[in-house]
Amino acid sequence: MSPTEYLNHHRERNLEELSHFLRIPSVSAKSEHREDTRRAAEWLAERMLEAGLHSAEVIATGGHPIVLAEWRGVPGGETVLVYGHYDVQPAEPLDEWTSSPFEPEIRDGKLFARGSVDDKGQVYLHLKAVEAHLAGTKQLPVNVVFLVEGEEEVGSPHLAEFLESNTERLRCDAVLISDTTMFAEGIPAITVGLRGLAYMEVRVQGPTGDLHSGSYGGAVVNPANALAKIIAQLHDDRGRVAIPGFYNEVRQLSGDERQALRDLPYDEETLREQTGAPALGGEAGFTVLERLGARPTLDVNGLLSGYTGEGAKTVLPARAMAKISMRLVPDQDYRTIEKLFADHVRRLAPVGVTVEVEALHGGHAWRAQPEGPVFDAATRALESAFGRAPVHMREGGSIPIVRAFQNTLGAPVVLIGFGLPGENAHAPNEWMSVDNFHRGAEAIARLYEELRPAG
Amino acid sequence: MSPTEYLNHHRERNLEELSHFLRIPSVSAKSEHREDTRRAAEWLAERMLEAGLHSAEVIATGGHPIVLAEWRGVPGGETVLVYGHYDVQPAEPLDEWTSSPFEPEIRDGKLFARGSVDDKGQVYLHLKAVEAHLAGTKQLPVNVVFLVEGEEEVGSPHLAEFLESNTERLRCDAVLISDTTMFAEGIPAITVGLRGLAYMEVRVQGPTGDLHSGSYGGAVVNPANALAKIIAQLHDDRGRVAIPGFYNEVRQLSGDERQALRDLPYDEETLREQTGAPALGGEAGFTVLERLGARPTLDVNGLLSGYTGEGAKTVLPARAMAKISMRLVPDQDYRTIEKLFADHVRRLAPVGVTVEVEALHGGHAWRAQPEGPVFDAATRALESAFGRAPVHMREGGSIPIVRAFQNTLGAPVVLIGFGLPGENAHAPNEWMSVDNFHRGAEAIARLYEELRPAG
Repeated sequence: MSPTEYLNHHRERNLEELSHFLRIPSVSAKSEHREDTRRAAEWLAERMLEAGLHSAEVIATGGHPIVLAEWRGVPGGETVLVYGHYDVQPAEPLDEWTSSPFEPEIRDGKLFARGSVDDKGQVYLHLKAVEAHLAGTKQLPVNVVFLVEGEEEVGSPHLAEFLESNTERLRCDAVLISDTTMFAEGIPAITVGLRGLAYMEVRVQGPTGDLHSGSYGGAVVNPANALAKIIAQLHDDRGRVAIPGFYNEVRQLSGDERQALRDLPYDEETLREQTGAPALGGEAGFTVLERLGARPTLDVNGLLSGYTGEGAKTVLPARAMAKISMRLVPDQDYRTIEKLFADHVRRLAPVGVTVEVEALHGGHAWRAQPEGPVFDAATRALESAFGRAPVHMREGGSIPIVRAFQNTLGAPVVLIGFGLPGENAHAPNEWMSVDNFHRGAEAIARLYEELRPAG
Repeated sequence: MSPTEYLNHHRERNLEELSHFLRIPSVSAKSEHREDTRRAAEWLAERMLEAGLHSAEVIATGGHPIVLAEWRGVPGGETVLVYGHYDVQPAEPLDEWTSSPFEPEIRDGKLFARGSVDDKGQVYLHLKAVEAHLAGTKQLPVNVVFLVEGEEEVGSPHLAEFLESNTERLRCDAVLISDTTMFAEGIPAITVGLRGLAYMEVRVQGPTGDLHSGSYGGAVVNPANALAKIIAQLHDDRGRVAIPGFYNEVRQLSGDERQALRDLPYDEETLREQTGAPALGGEAGFTVLERLGARPTLDVNGLLSGYTGEGAKTVLPARAMAKISMRLVPDQDYRTIEKLFADHVRRLAPVGVTVEVEALHGGHAWRAQPEGPVFDAATRALESAFGRAPVHMREGGSIPIVRAFQNTLGAPVVLIGFGLPGENAHAPNEWMSVDNFHRGAEAIARLYEELRPAG
C-alpha cells in the first residue's frame, strides 16, 4: 500500500483519533486546565509510538511539557524537524459556540472544535503522514524529529531555552511547521512572512475602591474614561499607530513586493463578508493584503472596568484594564516596541490616576528565505496534492518561535498551512476543513517521497 | 417611657432586626434575586405591623412590589409620607468586600453590609422612630404613611404610575426621605439639591464573531478601539462634556449660591484621602463642591470587550460595550440629554462598526424649597439629636422619584440623610455608622414631637 493509499484507507480512523485529541481541553493559559494539558501531551506521545516513531518522550519544562519524538532510521542522513503545539486558546465566550468547543462536530465539511486547526489538526496530519510511510515501507528518506509543545498560545516561554539546551539532539536540516492557512480554498500556500507581537496589559487605577458615581462623579477622575482617552490616542486620524518611534524600524515594501501582493488572486469583499463587518478599515494608503501582511498594527484585545452585568449600576469604577497587542513587521524589535508603548502610555496618563503597563508576551517578525530541498519538495508535494502550485503569502499572525528555530538551530523554516481564511482560530466556532485534513496528510506524505534521492 | 428612652432601651434589638433585613439579598437589578426581593418586602411589612402601624400591604407592580403601610390615628389631621427603598445595588465585585455583603458585621462603629446605608438602615430607623411613639403613647401628632419600594436601584420604573393611580390614598402634607448623607460626621444636613441622571448603554459591533487579531488585525475595524475613541470624545480638554447642546439648559449658580458653597466647612484633601485617588479632577473653573452638586458630569460605569481573563489572548473582539451615565442639574431634561447623547455617539461611530445606544434609566434633577412645618420640625429635631443645626447641602447623586412625589402629590419633599461621606454606597464595603442609625431614629422621633401642636 502506498502512503496515499494508506491514508485514504484510514480516513475514518484518523478523524476519530483527531477528535479524541480535540476532546482534551488543553488550554495552556488557564491553570485549571494544567492536568488536561499534560494529558494531551501524554496521549500524543502514545500515538507517536503507535505510528512507528522510535521514541516519544513527555519532557517537563517550567510550564507545560514538550513532546519530543524521533525516528532515526537514516544514520548520517538528513533530518527534518516537525514543530507544532498541542495547547489551545481559551474557548470563551462559550455561549457563542454552536457546538461545544471540546465536543468535535462535523458540519458542512468542517470539523468544529477548539484547536481543530490551531494546531492539533495540523500536528496530527503530520503524524499520520509519517505513519503512512512507516506502516508500509518501514522507511522514510530522512530522519524525522517531532517537537510539539504545550505553551505556544501563551508565548512559548520555555521553548527557546529548550532549543538552546538541546541543540545537538535537535540538529536538523529543515524545520517544517503547519500552523498557518492556505491562501484560499483550493489554493495552497507557503507562508514566507509572519508578523511579530508585543502583547501588553494596561491597568489604570483611580480611587482605592469603587465609588458612587453620583456622590463622587465630576470630582474624582474616572479610570475608565482615562483608559478610553489613552487608547484613543494610540492611533492618529489616518489609522497609523501614534506611538512616537513606532515606525522607525519598519522595513518598507519594495515596488516589486507591492506588485507581487497585488498580483495575488484576492478579493477584499470576500474578506469583509467572511468577517461580517459592515466595512473594512485600517491604515490609509495601503491595500488589505499590505495591512495584514506587511504593516504593523495595534489592537485592543480586551477591556474591563466597573459594572458589566445586567441593568444599570451607578458606579465610578476604581480601576480599568485593557489588553492591547501590536503586530510587528521586520525590522521592529518587540522589546523596543514594548518600551515605546509603555513610555507613551505612561506619558498619556492624566493626573488623578496611576497607570501600570506590563508586557505579557512578545516575539519578532520573520521573513523566509524560500529555498532549499525541503522548500522545493514542499512546493512539488502541495502541487501534487492540491492540483495547483502554492503561492507565497505573508501571514498577519505571529509564530514567535519561528525565529528561535532559525537562529538557534540554524536551519531554514518552511511554513505549510492547511487552515483556511475564516477558520475562527482564537475565536468561537473554530474549524478545520475535513478535506484539508486528509489532503494535508497526503501532501506531507508526498513531501517525504519528494525528498527521496532520485534512483 | 419617652420615645428617646424607648429607642435607647432597644438599641441592641433594633440593630439585630436591621441585620436580619440586611441578610436578605434584595438585589433588584438581578432576576436571580427576584424571590429575595419579595422576601425583603414581606419581612418589612410584618415588622411594620409589629411596630403598631394600622396596616401594611405588599402591593404587586409590574416589577418588584411596593410596601405600603399606614397609621391614620388623626382623622382630618395632617399626613407625613415616608419614602424609602428596600432594594439594594448588586454587591459585585465580591472579592473586594472585607466581610460578606449579606452577612452584616460591625467594625469600628460601622455596620458593613450591602444596603446598610442605602437604604435599609435609613428606612428602618424611620420605622423604629414611629414605633417609639406608638409603643408608649399609642399616638403620633400626624398621620403617617410608609411607601417603601423595591426598584429604586433600577430607576423606579413603576413608582410614578403607582403615585398617579393612588393620589387620593397617598395625599400628604410632606414627604420625608432619608436616602442621603449628612454633610460630615457630626454635621447633620438637609439636602436641598439632587442631580438628575441619564444612564446609557453603548454597544459597538464590528465583525460577526471574534477574530484572530493576527490574521485580521489592521484590516478589520476593532470595536474596542472604536468605543475608546467614542468615549474619549465625550469630554473636551477642560473636562467639559463635549456633547453638543449638553449645557444649553444648565442653570448657572448665582454669586450668592457660589458663596454659600464656599462658606461650608469643606476640605478637598479630606475627600481625596477618603477616595484614595492620587488627585482630584473635573471640570475646569469650578470647586469640588460645585462639581459635585451644581455641575453635570459624564462617567463610564462599565466597560467590557474581548478577552479579560488571565494571560494573553490575541483576539480581535466582535463587540465592545460601555455603560455611561450623566448626572444632570436643573434645568436639564433627561430625555433631551438621552437623545443628544445617542445622536452624538452615533455620529462619532467610525466606518466599519455599527453602534447601538440604549437609555437604561433616567430622572430629572431637583431643587428644594426649604420651608414649611416639616422642614422646620426637621431642622429643630436634627439640632436636638446631633447638637448642631443642619446645613443645607447639594448632593451629587440622584433620587429620580423626588420630583415625581413633588409633582404628583403636590407636597414638599424633605431630604434628611444619616449616611456619611465615604460610606461606599453602590461600592464594596458599604457601611452605615451605628451611632447615626441610633441617633437618626432619635432625630426622627423628635421630629414628630416637634410637629405636635403647642399646648
